[in-house]
Amino acid sequence: MYLADEAWPDLESYFESESLALVPLGSTEQHGPHLPEATDHLIAEAFAREAADRTGYLCTPTVTIGVSGHHRQFHGTMWVEPPVFREYVASLTRNLTSHGIDRVIYVNAHGGNVPHLREVGARLRQEEVAYAIEWMWNDSIPDLVDDLFEQNGPHGGPKETSMIQYLEPALVHDDRVRDARDGGVPSVDAAETVKHGSRTFYDAADNTENGVLGDQTDASAEKGERLFEAATDQLVQLCEWLDEQPFEDLLPKDHV
Amino acid sequence: MYLADEAWPDLESYFESESLALVPLGSTEQHGPHLPEATDHLIAEAFAREAADRTGYLCTPTVTIGVSGHHRQFHGTMWVEPPVFREYVASLTRNLTSHGIDRVIYVNAHGGNVPHLREVGARLRQEEVAYAIEWMWNDSIPDLVDDLFEQNGPHGGPKETSMIQYLEPALVHDDRVRDARDGGVPSVDAAETVKHGSRTFYDAADNTENGVLGDQTDASAEKGERLFEAATDQLVQLCEWLDEQPFEDLLPKDHV
Amino acid sequence: MYLADEAWPDLESYFESESLALVPLGSTEQHGPHLPEATDHLIAEAFAREAADRTGYLCTPTVTIGVSGHHRQFHGTMWVEPPVFREYVASLTRNLTSHGIDRVIYVNAHGGNVPHLREVGARLRQEEVAYAIEWMWNDSIPDLVDDLFEQNGPHGGPKETSMIQYLEPALVHDDRVRDARDGGVPSVDAAETVKHGSRTFYDAADNTENGVLGDQTDASAEKGERLFEAATDQLVQLCEWLDEQPFEDLLPKDHV
Amino acid sequence: MYLADEAWPDLESYFESESLALVPLGSTEQHGPHLPEATDHLIAEAFAREAADRTGYLCTPTVTIGVSGHHRQFHGTMWVEPPVFREYVASLTRNLTSHGIDRVIYVNAHGGNVPHLREVGARLRQEEVAYAIEWMWNDSIPDLVDDLFEQNGPHGGPKETSMIQYLEPALVHDDRVRDARDGGVPSVDAAETVKHGSRTFYDAADNTENGVLGDQTDASAEKGERLFEAATDQLVQLCEWLDEQPFEDLLPKDHV
Amino acid sequence: MYLADEAWPDLESYFESESLALVPLGSTEQHGPHLPEATDHLIAEAFAREAADRTGYLCTPTVTIGVSGHHRQFHGTMWVEPPVFREYVASLTRNLTSHGIDRVIYVNAHGGNVPHLREVGARLRQEEVAYAIEWMWNDSIPDLVDDLFEQNGPHGGPKETSMIQYLEPALVHDDRVRDARDGGVPSVDAAETVKHGSRTFYDAADNTENGVLGDQTDASAEKGERLFEAATDQLVQLCEWLDEQPFEDLLPKDHV
Amino acid sequence: MYLADEAWPDLESYFESESLALVPLGSTEQHGPHLPEATDHLIAEAFAREAADRTGYLCTPTVTIGVSGHHRQFHGTMWVEPPVFREYVASLTRNLTSHGIDRVIYVNAHGGNVPHLREVGARLRQEEVAYAIEWMWNDSIPDLVDDLFEQNGPHGGPKETSMIQYLEPALVHDDRVRDARDGGVPSVDAAETVKHGSRTFYDAADNTENGVLGDQTDASAEKGERLFEAATDQLVQLCEWLDEQPFEDLLPKDHV
Repeated sequence: MYLADEAWPDLESYFESESLALVPLGSTEQHGPHLPEATDHLIAEAFAREAADRTGYLCTPTVTIGVSGHHRQFHGTMWVEPPVFREYVASLTRNLTSHGIDRVIYVNAHGGNVPHLREVGARLRQEEVAYAIEWMWNDSIPDLVDDLFEQNGPHGGPKETSMIQYLEPALVHDDRVRDARDGGVPSVDAAETVKHGSRTFYDAADNTENGVLGDQTDASAEKGERLFEAATDQLVQLCEWLDEQPFEDLLPKDHV
Repeated sequence: MYLADEAWPDLESYFESESLALVPLGSTEQHGPHLPEATDHLIAEAFAREAADRTGYLCTPTVTIGVSGHHRQFHGTMWVEPPVFREYVASLTRNLTSHGIDRVIYVNAHGGNVPHLREVGARLRQEEVAYAIEWMWNDSIPDLVDDLFEQNGPHGGPKETSMIQYLEPALVHDDRVRDARDGGVPSVDAAETVKHGSRTFYDAADNTENGVLGDQTDASAEKGERLFEAATDQLVQLCEWLDEQPFEDLLPKDHV
Repeated sequence: MYLADEAWPDLESYFESESLALVPLGSTEQHGPHLPEATDHLIAEAFAREAADRTGYLCTPTVTIGVSGHHRQFHGTMWVEPPVFREYVASLTRNLTSHGIDRVIYVNAHGGNVPHLREVGARLRQEEVAYAIEWMWNDSIPDLVDDLFEQNGPHGGPKETSMIQYLEPALVHDDRVRDARDGGVPSVDAAETVKHGSRTFYDAADNTENGVLGDQTDASAEKGERLFEAATDQLVQLCEWLDEQPFEDLLPKDHV
Repeated sequence: MYLADEAWPDLESYFESESLALVPLGSTEQHGPHLPEATDHLIAEAFAREAADRTGYLCTPTVTIGVSGHHRQFHGTMWVEPPVFREYVASLTRNLTSHGIDRVIYVNAHGGNVPHLREVGARLRQEEVAYAIEWMWNDSIPDLVDDLFEQNGPHGGPKETSMIQYLEPALVHDDRVRDARDGGVPSVDAAETVKHGSRTFYDAADNTENGVLGDQTDASAEKGERLFEAATDQLVQLCEWLDEQPFEDLLPKDHV
Repeated sequence: MYLADEAWPDLESYFESESLALVPLGSTEQHGPHLPEATDHLIAEAFAREAADRTGYLCTPTVTIGVSGHHRQFHGTMWVEPPVFREYVASLTRNLTSHGIDRVIYVNAHGGNVPHLREVGARLRQEEVAYAIEWMWNDSIPDLVDDLFEQNGPHGGPKETSMIQYLEPALVHDDRVRDARDGGVPSVDAAETVKHGSRTFYDAADNTENGVLGDQTDASAEKGERLFEAATDQLVQLCEWLDEQPFEDLLPKDHV
Repeated sequence: MYLADEAWPDLESYFESESLALVPLGSTEQHGPHLPEATDHLIAEAFAREAADRTGYLCTPTVTIGVSGHHRQFHGTMWVEPPVFREYVASLTRNLTSHGIDRVIYVNAHGGNVPHLREVGARLRQEEVAYAIEWMWNDSIPDLVDDLFEQNGPHGGPKETSMIQYLEPALVHDDRVRDARDGGVPSVDAAETVKHGSRTFYDAADNTENGVLGDQTDASAEKGERLFEAATDQLVQLCEWLDEQPFEDLLPKDHV
């Protein structure tokens, strides 16, 4: 069920019987010469909408602009500062609870959002406002990702390329995947910006000239479909697991 | 040009030659028994995308969740607190300027966002970061709105109903427009919640039982089209006017 | 009853039997070549003190410096930033409740304070701390204002001029009212700073050279007296209405 | 020169030739059974206005509500939280500088404001925005205070009582000075709320039943006049000293 | 008992039976040519650890960096801004209460921290989170300090010199005490930076060239030992007094 | 060179010739039944002091209380909220630059601090205030850690146990290492609190009963020494690398 399509009276029965919501979050940021800036929010929205369709759980509109300051050197990257992102997500989550939601899955497709969503989730749980957890599709299917790609990226690599080739093929510049690979770096390690255990880079531009990592020529819509199906399946299971938990079990444990 | 569809190298020439961006903003909130909660953000996005298409100016993704706490009593309304909304919009606007944008039109379709967008715009201008102004479609065509409707609402009234009937007809419950009218109030005045010059109401629920005002039976897709065309034309002209101004002329005047 | 004149034991019986306070708020900002910068806070204080005298309700000291950054180009304008104003008013209102006040009228005479007082009032009500509403004298008597003046301003126009001519005649430069009119603009419309529905001005200086609008030659102390009496009467009625409401009825309505 | 009484064109020559402003600050808080809650802001305003009159320097309106949470247990005390007070004063001071003010004297009559005004002043100086210092009348004439009173209070004691007897005699309940003394404590020491070097009290109510300290029977309007004249003289000298300093000399010293 | 040395199971019985904690706080800032920058935090830690050892109460790790911006001109001074310091101390105190602590002594050895610790303590008490008070060793033994030294400083004077000579003699440059005296000023009065009752200085560098006040040649380890013993005795008594109080008696008094 | 031991004149030559500082940061939090709560800050301090001794670079005092709310259920854990920690570290780093420091290594030994130190570092670099990077000892020697331990924990596991056995043997309860292992879990995986790719745990108590992970019986002081020597060597090299970089090269790259 997609919240934004509904008139308010039609949401009443959902909130009476259910307490789970899926909130998609991504970014609008450079994804190399071949992928659209929308990449992350398209992926997040696709997963959240699909899982909502398959399960009947509620999906909210997508937060399209996230924590992407580390891509600022590339044309078109949009972002908000980390404290602002946290407050925006915290505020909308907190307010969702006024309708009876008490558990939320942040269906996230942007690595840069992760620590912030975890911080927000920890705070809301500690305050016993809601139990909100972050889910990122590739973390749910690490073995398949490893099987499919030699150099998966991460940012703008074959993993994300395959996904957009499957979800929004018209937005991929297939004729640039070779350039994407050749103009970027195979991996963070290859960029040699970790010194003696310290990550000495802060921006994508510190690692790579064209903004992306991995071997994009290894991508395909077919792989995208396999990834999408496998990860959607994981998300559906996560929804079901979460729905089954008594709210008390989701709250912080007592002091020893 | 829609920023999120583009790969970063394809945005370079725009930022070299242009400095204007359209940012659509709406809300996700109850709009009565007949309209989707997406109403405001659908309208904002439609105007911004259309004006961008017609003029070639850049349109960013839509901010879908705004200041809607005053609709909290109705199922599904989502919102962020006013300070959070202001910081979110200020942060993304401020950061857009890193690419060369120095003038922004907030294509807004939610009255509740107005004072906050004005506050953000005033601050950014005072700091000489950017010149950002708020535009709301119905304010640009007051005479046409008056001509078309006896009781225009505002919230969830025939004006917005016509617009969604035109833009997203599948999301309107046409069979409920009579109920929408009969279960709501004709206008804020009719709700009698202004006492001796003081607005004594804070929430939509203080004024109306079903969340909407005006006579929705007066709406039609044809009227929606007329409104959309007329206001788009205004927005296009606003873009052109804004583009023509030297940036110095947009900055605060000197002290007398 | 004026709080600041009393010794604390003499306030006990008021707080035991009553729960309403009038808080005057204005600005210290330019009001053209003929009016004092105190204009708004003098007017606010006069109404609040008069209504308190006539009804016996409590009046607090006046907040004299408000949100006036949009008058910054004119000598002497003082202001605080909007978030600071909101917190100042919210904090003093919140703390007033420690003595038993649960309803407050912000007797306001500065348009620039309005959205901020509404925001504070909404928050305090939502938190069930207090029910605080904004009242501005001219909004309570729109017909009389229309009857008395062709071009009422608003800022520094004949409406406010009449009021200061009545309340503090020594502070009006009567010999400059013609200059005030001729050096300003008749109305916001006449300044032509609304473009295609968008308010493209942020500062008073964007609209007018001398800081004021309207036809000040139309002002008189007699008109000031009529305005003062009529609006005071409205404020007295508002006090009485507010006092009669059970506190529960002033709180936010339940979720539908 | 009192800023609020002036029309903006009449302030131009002041700002062209001078850069100093006097900002009075006090509190609205209980001052025992005999003094009005306005005590502190009346005193602050009287000094600032008088010094401005004698010297020609600019005086602004008074900040009447300060940091008085420690008097919350007594009817009618109004206050704002410390961070809010600091931001309010910092914001209005910062903005005053837009007209050419670069040095400010906070003419303060409330001890509870002192550390906050010092913090604000330090910050503004460090940022090289303005040089603002706190002045409290009794600190400028310690010997005279000692000469005139055995037990001077401080809060609501004979010092402040004498001052209001002189400045606003109608607001003093002279028939309650004996009660004020007998129902309070002679001094903080006498309250025995300092334990082993630690101030274990936070509120006035921790020290005294009626909110005041000292021997109020020792007060008189004559003493008030002597205090007022002596301290005004100090304030005038402070204005003159401050005016003479080159702005560079008022800024922070360089790093050694 | 020193919290940081213990494994968590070994703290259980303490928290079951006791509710008091000692939190040492100091600064890392210049203390003249002869004393280490650690001076204040060494002293604070020594008192807190000693009192904890003698009484069995719990001592936490030391907050070593405080509010020292006023020493910024001297090499090596470290500091945090006042609002940050307050939040840091408030947050750690608030969180200590999760284990059962409800009363805290801030064993403080830096004057610049005092108003901030008082502000934090007042807030936590008002919220009924904890009762936390500030204790500074020299305030507990004023007579002894007066007896031992003609010119005690305060900053970097013989009082603090004696203390470090006793506690950490290896860190004192005994051969520089004469220079310390001759290059500094005897007292704040002697610096003549109080004008007409107003403290016109903000930084240590405004008063003194080498950063210190008083006559350091008057210091000795023997005096340090006397001071340490006498003040430790006071702190022990304060712990005992505080421990004896029912928590209700430590909370704010009721409204009169 | 240890900043806190020095008198200010003795730091002058360092700041004239060098611009690097080591800032140790840890936590005070439960580390199982066998390790002291100080574990992380002892380790951080040991590395920073040792590297400073070997290289001559400056080491500051240790921040002992960090982001440890996720250990709140265990007696004695101290923490500050994440925004407070970030501001505290940002403020002290920002201020260090007043003496000429422009590059900082956060010698960190607490995983919970990592994202916050990265956020602070990114902000300070973006503002071109300083280049500050986070270093955590075990990240610098992943192969050795893998070689030495089967199940390294992380929290309170054999890695940290070995380190404290080497650095502060008196603080380890060697007789409890078997209990530590048997009462905890071998790894996060073993706790089975990652569901379908989502980390569903927020607190240590969600994963383990006694607060620790890994096989502590595998620890020894000898291993601790090897770890300490190897990681110190890495830190020394990091210092040297960082010192060699021109400051321009450490700043953010230009926009493409």
